[in-house]
Amino acid sequence: MKSMLITGANRGLGFGMIKAILNQPKENVPQIIVAACRKPDEANELQALAAENSNIRILQLESKDLDRYPAFTKEVADIVKDGGLDLLINNAGIGSRFHRIGMVKSDELIETFTVNTVGPIMLTKNILPLLKSAAEKNANAPQGAAKAKIVNISSILGSMQANTDGGHYSYRCSKAAVNAATVSMKVDLKGTGICAVCIHPGWVKTAMGGPKAPLEVDKACKRLVNTIMQISEEHNGGFYDLDGKKLAW
Amino acid sequence: MKSMLITGANRGLGFGMIKAILNQPKENVPQIIVAACRKPDEANELQALAAENSNIRILQLESKDLDRYPAFTKEVADIVKDGGLDLLINNAGIGSRFHRIGMVKSDELIETFTVNTVGPIMLTKNILPLLKSAAEKNANAPQGAAKAKIVNISSILGSMQANTDGGHYSYRCSKAAVNAATVSMKVDLKGTGICAVCIHPGWVKTAMGGPKAPLEVDKACKRLVNTIMQISEEHNGGFYDLDGKKLAW
Repeated sequence: MKSMLITGANRGLGFGMIKAILNQPKENVPQIIVAACRKPDEANELQALAAENSNIRILQLESKDLDRYPAFTKEVADIVKDGGLDLLINNAGIGSRFHRIGMVKSDELIETFTVNTVGPIMLTKNILPLLKSAAEKNANAPQGAAKAKIVNISSILGSMQANTDGGHYSYRCSKAAVNAATVSMKVDLKGTGICAVCIHPGWVKTAMGGPKAPLEVDKACKRLVNTIMQISEEHNGGFYDLDGKKLAW
Repeated sequence: MKSMLITGANRGLGFGMIKAILNQPKENVPQIIVAACRKPDEANELQALAAENSNIRILQLESKDLDRYPAFTKEVADIVKDGGLDLLINNAGIGSRFHRIGMVKSDELIETFTVNTVGPIMLTKNILPLLKSAAEKNANAPQGAAKAKIVNISSILGSMQANTDGGHYSYRCSKAAVNAATVSMKVDLKGTGICAVCIHPGWVKTAMGGPKAPLEVDKACKRLVNTIMQISEEHNGGFYDLDGKKLAW
């Protein structure tokens, strides 16, 4: 893989995935890692990592700032050049407080949907020409391999089948919706060699997951990256956990 | 059933369901049918039906006007009084043009989500005390019967399993999200006797469905109403077609 783009790269799973990617065998480490975050100036850990790894390129992106996506895409294009983009990880997202039906708020529903669903869909739309370029460059990839990949970081909370605890309307709706979009991406991109999947990263000790989460960031991200690297056409359009196990919608 | 509320009541499935409800055996026809629509002054067919059926009460509601929901709920409460509300049908919704990923628009994603997902969730939240009143009044209903019901009109396009055609991001996301919300409603309302289901009404010859749709409005609404009337605790939290057949998420 020559190039990848990940959003929400300054902390939590985004930062953890970059570290896990850098820790892979050298031949698997992308030559270009575009790391997008809301406030690069305040992303101290990411800046320090980029100072040590010249393949990391930091760009500014606020998911809600949908008008900036075309200009952002131009910046990514200027970095990856003719090679295009092999992997897009739509990781940026917001959580929401646990509310039962009596406390649900419309502003929170719309904001969470905008960041967690509209963001990944619109970034995918904008970045698509770069993914197509990479897929064409990778035309001779082994049979069944994904020639370029879209990974939407979703959540088991977006699964209807697994919803035994209720509440969480904002987050659940946004993740069920991004799962629905992932299946449409699979169908829409048929024949391009670009695969789209949604992945539940597990409940991880991030700012969103909180200290009670059972999974450590570094260990979870290692498993997550291992799964992402192995995505092939057989996974296309599916919903998986961090180890690649298929999840029910 | 003493009382019901249906949104989007002036045309299409909403109007059709009211007519089908009126055509039931007399003992099954609600004493109060609150029919909400965006522009009562322009709802000529509904006004004519209300002139002939004194149980129909027309109220104004625009789904996107979320700030009006509390005042609207007060108007419903003033009509149904102590009996509460036995049935809420969240029927109002908007369609969206078919777009593949390259043509998807963020404004359309957010507007469709607001009407088709946020609307039903926020109306349910507001109306909930009236549903609880009715459920308490119906405490002696037969074992397993729903004591009050929330019906979210969804769509097979919100099913990930059934998505073989792709595209349609705005509509699919909004309907997958309202399905997710329905399951949370089921869990959140455990023990109240209120059941929540989502129903795919079929592809019907309405303004949204278009003239190529295989189902006639009146026939589809008869089947739909028949299914709604039979909702019991065993259906709670599920996704069904117009004949009550369970659908995959």
